[in-house]
Amino acid sequence: MRLSRYFLPVLKENPAEAQIVSHRLMLRAGMIKQQQAGIYSWLPMGFKVLKRIEQIVHEEQIRAGHIPLLMPTLQPADLWRESGRYDDYGEEMLRIRDRHGRDMLYGPTNEEMITDIFRAHVESYKQLPLTLYHVQWKFRDEVRPRFGVMRGREFYMKDGYTFDLTREDALHAYNRHLVSYLRTYERMGLQAIPMRADGGPIGGDYTHEFLVLAETGESEVFYDSEVTDLTFGDREIDYDDRAQCQGVLEEFTSRYARTDETHDEALFNAIPEERRRVARGIEVGQIFYFGTKYSEAMGATVNTPDGKKVPVEMGSHGIGVSRLVGALIEANHDDKGIIWPEGVTPFHCGIVNLKQGDAACDSACEALYAALSAKGLEPLYDDREERAGAKFATMDLIGLPWRITVGPRGLANNLVELTSRRTGESEEMSAEAAVARIVEIYASV
Amino acid sequence: MRLSRYFLPVLKENPAEAQIVSHRLMLRAGMIKQQQAGIYSWLPMGFKVLKRIEQIVHEEQIRAGHIPLLMPTLQPADLWRESGRYDDYGEEMLRIRDRHGRDMLYGPTNEEMITDIFRAHVESYKQLPLTLYHVQWKFRDEVRPRFGVMRGREFYMKDGYTFDLTREDALHAYNRHLVSYLRTYERMGLQAIPMRADGGPIGGDYTHEFLVLAETGESEVFYDSEVTDLTFGDREIDYDDRAQCQGVLEEFTSRYARTDETHDEALFNAIPEERRRVARGIEVGQIFYFGTKYSEAMGATVNTPDGKKVPVEMGSHGIGVSRLVGALIEANHDDKGIIWPEGVTPFHCGIVNLKQGDAACDSACEALYAALSAKGLEPLYDDREERAGAKFATMDLIGLPWRITVGPRGLANNLVELTSRRTGESEEMSAEAAVARIVEIYASV
Repeated sequence: MRLSRYFLPVLKENPAEAQIVSHRLMLRAGMIKQQQAGIYSWLPMGFKVLKRIEQIVHEEQIRAGHIPLLMPTLQPADLWRESGRYDDYGEEMLRIRDRHGRDMLYGPTNEEMITDIFRAHVESYKQLPLTLYHVQWKFRDEVRPRFGVMRGREFYMKDGYTFDLTREDALHAYNRHLVSYLRTYERMGLQAIPMRADGGPIGGDYTHEFLVLAETGESEVFYDSEVTDLTFGDREIDYDDRAQCQGVLEEFTSRYARTDETHDEALFNAIPEERRRVARGIEVGQIFYFGTKYSEAMGATVNTPDGKKVPVEMGSHGIGVSRLVGALIEANHDDKGIIWPEGVTPFHCGIVNLKQGDAACDSACEALYAALSAKGLEPLYDDREERAGAKFATMDLIGLPWRITVGPRGLANNLVELTSRRTGESEEMSAEAAVARIVEIYASV
Repeated sequence: MRLSRYFLPVLKENPAEAQIVSHRLMLRAGMIKQQQAGIYSWLPMGFKVLKRIEQIVHEEQIRAGHIPLLMPTLQPADLWRESGRYDDYGEEMLRIRDRHGRDMLYGPTNEEMITDIFRAHVESYKQLPLTLYHVQWKFRDEVRPRFGVMRGREFYMKDGYTFDLTREDALHAYNRHLVSYLRTYERMGLQAIPMRADGGPIGGDYTHEFLVLAETGESEVFYDSEVTDLTFGDREIDYDDRAQCQGVLEEFTSRYARTDETHDEALFNAIPEERRRVARGIEVGQIFYFGTKYSEAMGATVNTPDGKKVPVEMGSHGIGVSRLVGALIEANHDDKGIIWPEGVTPFHCGIVNLKQGDAACDSACEALYAALSAKGLEPLYDDREERAGAKFATMDLIGLPWRITVGPRGLANNLVELTSRRTGESEEMSAEAAVARIVEIYASV
């Protein structure tokens, strides 16, 4: 993309309404625009990051054998009356009446609807195990929306639902989700720690939240410092292998790591003192096993091998896709702006032309642009008539992990400059070498 | 995908509520489930088709230089009060009140919101031309939703908005959209004819609708039979080339083609009688140029080169993404089921194992599955323990354009059978040759 033809409305001033860094940087980098309290437009660059995150989520869910579908944003109230949650949910549920006076709601989650789909189409244990998920806009009418997309009202979420014959099968589905989530966050360049959590309004006593450590986190968290040494890495996973999935769960959850909701001071104090950590965290996902809570209430049963009819065992598993954009920035920024991890960056590489209009600089930039594009990468070429300082400031603000700078002095020696946004380090090399380096970096992402 | 692990709830019976063939086939093929009047879940195979269509729309919009973003589903009523449409829109607008009593609505279209984004961020003619678009869920509270996804209430639509300094520039943006739409529909295997249309509630007197001819179409259409001979083909387009875009517009719109809203009997009768056609059509898109209707009302101005401030020239351009799934089926089916064009098929090829459990058949199917997957194609392998007849009926119903059938008799001679869903013709060949043929077919899609 050429910046002169793009729509990247960066702000020079710090917006007064933004209390936390991710909100401020998303506004300043032209990623979002607030349309009303807690409801945002995703401007082009913000939309690209949102889509990259969604794509990683899809790829990892499909890798785990989970099946995507899409449920609508609006749901009939009657479905929620069946589970008893229509009256329980409180004011956070956005209630709507249509022209015929029928009660609807903007879905905050989808347990009822997926159970309805299941009961309409599945009868036999032979059709199990089954995991269905979608990534869809949801709404929670927060009384005080704040922190930008971190606590918005209209938000984008992946929610997946597991259906199994037995509790044992359902717990394997739970483990499978935990493993797939670890992979998912790590691909985004995030460390999200699974912590023992509380069931809340969805119910279920077997649940973990995934938390990203950040000063601005809403939850206080308590953990053994050894949990932050764990990485998923590039291990091969067979998602049908129960022992392997269970092993990963144990590896990542056996050490103490809890939010304030489930914190146990005695257990915490049993950790050697030098390993005890108290910090803040941002919740970016949660997994639940809740058994037959919904299937019993809504009559979602399956025939067993021995001819009985039993309510299906269920769980639900969510990743906050729009919230992750904020969480990623909270965990990856400096005074100058955002620092995107390679896995989610909106453009793979910036190209800065120090002397727009100079024939040699222009043609070197065009050649770089073409060479990167030919390799399937998306560069963002700052081809505006602007001072070098302004171009660098924009690139630093929007946070592309790599920048190639092209100027007349370097070109005289056939050199361009490759700069890492994260370290700030620059290296001179030929344009070909710079392209080869960028290609190599992204080949391993 | 292995069918034994997929969620494809096909129905044996014809659903009573479905009046038209696409609705019936989408229900029978397990593509959708109605959740309430005019609101559907997209089951896994339906979701795949929806995403393929969306992907083609994105690719062609980006090719034309248009920039994707994403506006929220809910909009503040105040924005619509500025344009005067809040009161005008009538009962089709779904009005919502949040917990603080603020009036909102579920967006049926986005002229107001995009104009709001524009006025907040664009000041100068130097930032023009600009085309911003999104693909987002919308809602129209139809009094009698029917025909499945063809006339639903919650629907998925691409809507794009053009911003230009002059009327002449805006008309080029209009032409660019017409060209990109012709390419888009043709890639999906659809002929959509641009017809002179009526502005309706969006306004604008320069507008074309794109109609797919089908008996079940809602609009009566009148056209010169020569329009159906036109194809866009693989011509190269430079979207910045005004004369070229204008030439395409003239080629595709100079012959008589109108809906009943704009039909002119005298002009129609001037066509030679043997070329006059009266038929029915399904609207799958519409383009509008409406000038300064919204920019004046909402104060979206730009500074001109000579220092004046003028309201920006606008247009809006829509493609009915969810509706296209229905329209594609209306135009591509037979008594046995759907016949997907290669461009939008949910899976590229079916694999039918005639003797599940037979070692030779199973391993030949697995090898085919692996070979097609390795080429980046997605096969659907019917690995269920079912009669051959049931497997063929399912494949015919769901409409994958190509099927490879593997049975013991053929395998004895190292042969499998490749069948075209459209023609019904089968050909025996080696498994390698079948894979090569499928790869070749999709390479040209």
